Formats: sequence, structure tokens, C-alpha cells
Amino acid sequence: MKRRVHSEEVTKAAIQKLKDRGVTILDIAEIVFELQSPYSQNLTLDECVDSVENVLLKREIQHAILVGVELDTLAEQGKLSEPLQSIVETDESLFGIDETIALGASLGYGSIAVTNYGHLDSEKIGIIKNLDTKMGEKVHTFLDDLIGAIAASAASRLAHRIRDYEDELTTAFFKENEKMIK
Amino acid sequence: MKRRVHSEEVTKAAIQKLKDRGVTILDIAEIVFELQSPYSQNLTLDECVDSVENVLLKREIQHAILVGVELDTLAEQGKLSEPLQSIVETDESLFGIDETIALGASLGYGSIAVTNYGHLDSEKIGIIKNLDTKMGEKVHTFLDDLIGAIAASAASRLAHRIRDYEDELTTAFFKENEKMIK
Amino acid sequence: MKRRVHSEEVTKAAIQKLKDRGVTILDIAEIVFELQSPYSQNLTLDECVDSVENVLLKREIQHAILVGVELDTLAEQGKLSEPLQSIVETDESLFGIDETIALGASLGYGSIAVTNYGHLDSEKIGIIKNLDTKMGEKVHTFLDDLIGAIAASAASRLAHRIRDYEDELTTAFFKENEKMIK
Amino acid sequence: MKRRVHSEEVTKAAIQKLKDRGVTILDIAEIVFELQSPYSQNLTLDECVDSVENVLLKREIQHAILVGVELDTLAEQGKLSEPLQSIVETDESLFGIDETIALGASLGYGSIAVTNYGHLDSEKIGIIKNLDTKMGEKVHTFLDDLIGAIAASAASRLAHRIRDYEDELTTAFFKENEKMIK
Repeated sequence: MKRRVHSEEVTKAAIQKLKDRGVTILDIAEIVFELQSPYSQNLTLDECVDSVENVLLKREIQHAILVGVELDTLAEQGKLSEPLQSIVETDESLFGIDETIALGASLGYGSIAVTNYGHLDSEKIGIIKNLDTKMGEKVHTFLDDLIGAIAASAASRLAHRIRDYEDELTTAFFKENEKMIK
Repeated sequence: MKRRVHSEEVTKAAIQKLKDRGVTILDIAEIVFELQSPYSQNLTLDECVDSVENVLLKREIQHAILVGVELDTLAEQGKLSEPLQSIVETDESLFGIDETIALGASLGYGSIAVTNYGHLDSEKIGIIKNLDTKMGEKVHTFLDDLIGAIAASAASRLAHRIRDYEDELTTAFFKENEKMIK
Repeated sequence: MKRRVHSEEVTKAAIQKLKDRGVTILDIAEIVFELQSPYSQNLTLDECVDSVENVLLKREIQHAILVGVELDTLAEQGKLSEPLQSIVETDESLFGIDETIALGASLGYGSIAVTNYGHLDSEKIGIIKNLDTKMGEKVHTFLDDLIGAIAASAASRLAHRIRDYEDELTTAFFKENEKMIK
Repeated sequence: MKRRVHSEEVTKAAIQKLKDRGVTILDIAEIVFELQSPYSQNLTLDECVDSVENVLLKREIQHAILVGVELDTLAEQGKLSEPLQSIVETDESLFGIDETIALGASLGYGSIAVTNYGHLDSEKIGIIKNLDTKMGEKVHTFLDDLIGAIAASAASRLAHRIRDYEDELTTAFFKENEKMIK
């Protein structure tokens, strides 16, 4: 009998996978801060941590982490079949499934997330740069794209939230405007 | 001096544009009910209305409505330049910008939203079918795709919510698990 | 010393992987015929085979096949780590990485490919239906989406080609119009 | 009786629209050269022109140009309805339909096109920078994203072609391998 996996188990596993690969929520929050602080003067690192945590609660992001880290780990152990093993191991330049999975996960946060992601892909920042340098011993073909997508999403989420705050947009909006809507 | 548009103005305008084109939130909610009720026995139409309202609060969805309805209306009035005027007026089969805008807006609700949207595009349901039939007097090249995207998004949102409820997933999750995360 | 994989090796491997999982080019061509024949009266199955072959030459499609079939196979052998093993094995309804990879691969063929794909996802046709029925012994979580994406892409490619043919559009177009362009 | 637009008319119109807005194929080719020359030593500007021309033959790209330039022009003339007029005129930072249309058009060239596009969005290069500076008199909300998407697509196309050439991949591949495939 196949078992149904509880959402909480998936959440915990996704965060644990990142930690196992040497990536903390704080590492990602620092990228978010660098991306977003030019646009919002009073931004704190704590708000970035909070935004990363919220992004990590999204199912699509969690699933992307589980699949991406699994493929990196299997490649590291030489357990993929050829030619996929060589393609992932060498981070072959025309291989795009890592980017497709990362992009797919960040599309939920709008087009700002996508351009942020493209920017991070060309200018490696913070932990993404460190992972890139350690290459050789480790396989991080999927991990660097995943971190880029999470950071890009968290930054985009902040941009939208700040605007909501400025405009004092409340979720109570529809309650107050019921007559207009229906 | 150019003016900054307040979020609330955009929200109201997007909903009003739909109404001006003959589409109510209830019309869209009925499509959502048809899409989602096979998967959740106790689903009510009210919950579908609520989900559509929430989707309509998303900026990407609102902007998609503003642009799509504008292009439909301008085509109806013969005010687009050629050959765009003829392409939009005839809903040219290989023209895909209507679908790109609609899809882009629904990507925020995950891959279920995208497959729901593709399904609605082939099986015209409810108001989408009615719009299709009225073609001739009116141009609804963008509107039918927009409604499909909104309904698909609202149905996908419900699917995720129902699972969250079943798993009793709370946003308080991170508070309770602070030690694990940091 | 890590090796660079030759494009031809990737092409052969992708087609072989499909065959190993019981899917032939003809199986996919039959879905394409069913999708596209209502729109083009003289369409032959041979033209559908030809279109599927061309789609299979695309690197993004080949990489999607290699990754998707690898994950299905590993899940079948119980070799993925938990909770990914259970999620893939049960084809968990809110898991969307299979659709993200398939969609990513078919986006190259325009928005018709995406709506075709969504349609195939709801109405299982031909070999996709057969794979669905055999579930239990085998894991086809990624395979059915891959086949849907390949068929959707091949059908979209045909739709564009037929229009090109009708309009006698030649790749020599730019040569003849040099003065206009530069 | 509504008329069907010939593909050649659409192609000519799309290129003409770019010229009318002050953008030549050469301008875009120069961005492609800057993007791609670090990766291919013998790349010539002529090859970049050729790649841009090929991208401009794609229907999805042509339609994106027609729609984007139309909206820019209408905004410039103050002919859009509010609040869309103000949003497009000010290139409102959270407005993403310009990016959605541009991205949708470049997705046909794979994930490299998408990351190239994201890069161009943050580092304005060549004509994109010039357009940005001229802002004030003119509205280029959609145009700069369209140019970014065309350049990103042409660069991605070159990257794939160069690899094909290196691997001597021929379209005759399937002819020679018939037994394997069927």
C-alpha cells in the first residue's frame, strides 16, 4: 500500500536537503538583501529571512528542491545512467533542465522573479558564488539554480509587499467593496 | 508630471472592465465549480466565488485583464493598426499573444493552473462558450483566454488550499519549528 | 577528466530511453494525427512521424526525456530518497515537476503546443492512456507528461508548417527583401 | 467579410514597426555579438545579423512586436484608457505584461534565451540603453523588452548552432539512422 506524504514532512525535508548541501536560510536571505535593498531603504535582513521562509512554504518550490538536490546527489555518487551522468556532472552548458525546474518554481512570484533569476544566473552572488568555486569535488548543477530561484522569488515577493504596504492595501479590500464586486 | 496609480484603483478597474464586457465573478466561479467539484465533494459555489475574488487581487492578473480587454475593445472599434487589427478581429488561429498573457498570469498558481487552462481552451465551458457564440458583433480574442486563466488559477488555488486544510498546515509552522530552520 | 557528451549520443540515448519504456515514435505520431487531423484534411500519419522525429532532434526535448525517464526508473527501483520516492511512486496530485519539465520542453513550439499539452493532460489519448492503465507495476509519473509534450509540440509544429506552406513562405524571403530589411 | 492576413505581410510589418521606432536589425545584432562573442572566438557580426533575421521570421516574435509596439505607440498618443495609460506611460515597476510578452516570445529558444533576457533586463546594453535614456518624450515600455527578447533569442540560437556545428550534427541524422528509430 503506497503512502500519502504529509505536507509538513515535505516542508521539513526540503529545508533539510538545503542544509545538507551547505545552504542555510540566512545565506539565501543575504542574496535577497543585496537584490532588494537598493529599492527599499529601510529593508532589514530579518525581513529577507522572513520572505525566504515564506517562499520555502510553497509546494512548487519544495518539490523543485527535492528533485534538484536528488539529481545533484545521485550525480555526485555516479549513480545516474549515461549520458545523463556526464551531462549533470560537468554542468554541460546547453543543459537547461536545471534552469527549467528553477524557473518553473519562481514563476509563481511574477515576472520580477524571472528577471531577478536571470540576473543572478549571470552575476553569481554570495553563496551561489561559493558553490561555484567549490565545484570539482561536489556537483551543484541544480543547487545553484534552485538558490537563485528562491532568492529571486523572495525578492520579488518583498517588492510586491512593500508596494501593498505603501498603498495600504488590505486583504479586507473585498469585504469593504462587496457591493461593487457582486 | 506623470502620476502613480494606486493599487486599489487598478483592482477596481480590472473588475469593472470584466463587468463592462459582460463577465461577472459569479460567471467565473461557476467554471471553477465545474473544474474542481469532481475532486472535492463538499465544495460550495461560495468557496469558488471566494477563490476567484482572491485571484482577482493579484497584480499580474489585474494587469493582464487591463491589457487584454483594452486590445479587444480597440479591435472592436477598428482602432488598431494593420495587420494587428485584422489578426485580433479574426482571432487568427496562430496568434498566441492572448494565450501568452493569460498563461503568464496563471503561472502564479502552479502547473495545475496551466493544465486546467489548456483544458478550458479545448472544452469551452459556461461563459467562455457564450462569448464564443456571440462572436461576430464583438471581439473577445483576449477575453476568453483571460477568463480561462482566472478560472484555472482559482481552481488550482482551491486544490492547494484543500490539501493544506487536510494536512492542517498552518502559517504558524515556521514559528513552531524555529530551531530546525535556523 | 570529465568527458564532453556528443550531441549524437544524446539523441540516440533519448530515443532509446523511450523505446526501453515501451514507447515508439509511431505511438506518439498517432496522438499527433488525432490532435491535428481535424484541422488539416490531407494530413498523413507519415507527416506526423516526420514531425515527431524533428521534435526529438531538439536538445531541450532530449534532456527532458533523459531526466524524466531516469526519475521514473529510479522510483520504480525504490532508489530515490524519501519523501521524493513516495511522491513520484504515487504520482502525487499536487506534484508538478513532471509537468514543469514537460511544459518547459514544449514551450519551444509556441502557445498552441501548451494548450495541446493541457488538453492531452485531461483527455488521455492512445499510448498515454495505456501507460495510465498499466500503473501499479510501473512508474510513469514523468513519461506520460513527456509523451504529451512531444505530441503537443509535433502537432503545433505541423500547424505552423501547414500555414507556411499555404502562404508559400520560403526561407529565401530575407534574401529577396534585403533592401527593406537593412 | 474579414480578411486573412498573409504571413509575409506580418513579417514585413513587424520589421517595419521596429524601424519606425528607431531600431534596426544591426542594432540588435550588436547586442547579440556582445552577449555571445565571449563564448565563440571567431563569431562575426554578420553571423549575428543572420541570427537576428532568423529569429524575426518566427511568428511568435512577430506577433509580440506588433502588440508591444502598438501599446507603446497608443500610450505615447495618450489613447489608452485609464489606469492602463498611466501604467504604461510611466513604465510602472510592478507592471509585468511587457516582460511576459517578451519572455513568451523568447521561450522558443530555450532556457539560455531566458537567462540572457534576464541579464539584458538588468544590464542595459547598446540600443536598449539608448532607448532608456530617451525616455520622457517617447514611451518604450514594451520596446526595450522586445529587443532584449530578440537579442537573447538570437544569441541562444547561435549557441545551439555552434554546438551543432562542432558535433557535425546534420539534419540527415534521422535518414542515416532509420533502422534504429523505427
